[in-house]
Amino acid sequence: MHTVEIEYCVPCGFRDRALDVQRAILGGLEGQLDRIALVTGDHGVFRVSVDGEPVFDKDDDEFDVDEIVRAVRTRLR
Amino acid sequence: MHTVEIEYCVPCGFRDRALDVQRAILGGLEGQLDRIALVTGDHGVFRVSVDGEPVFDKDDDEFDVDEIVRAVRTRLR
Repeated sequence: MHTVEIEYCVPCGFRDRALDVQRAILGGLEGQLDRIALVTGDHGVFRVSVDGEPVFDKDDDEFDVDEIVRAVRTRLR
Repeated sequence: MHTVEIEYCVPCGFRDRALDVQRAILGGLEGQLDRIALVTGDHGVFRVSVDGEPVFDKDDDEFDVDEIVRAVRTRLR
């Protein structure tokens, strides 16, 4: 079982984006997760990690919900 | 800053309920939170805690999103 964290920039208004990603991850992978957390941040952050290992960073990757779910799934294997 | 956890029963299908509660808490209290986590459980569990202290348990309280938000807000004071 695993932990996913989604850190998002609050002043940027990325909350809905974080909720979308969370819902998509739960849709496919809920049974493999202990917990999925939204972590409040700032300075434009939008990062997703699995068990502390980064799998998505808005600074490096284009935002795509399906790609993020795929990256999380790959890390869970 | 604080941590909220929402533990919900996966086989019971309480995910949407957990997401509703999470969204309501973020709507009013996002600025006071470090993180808000959905924690997967079973056996009918639906519990909300703030910094590890329980503020709602389905076994003891009637489910009411507004009441849960109020209980979280009270704990944050």
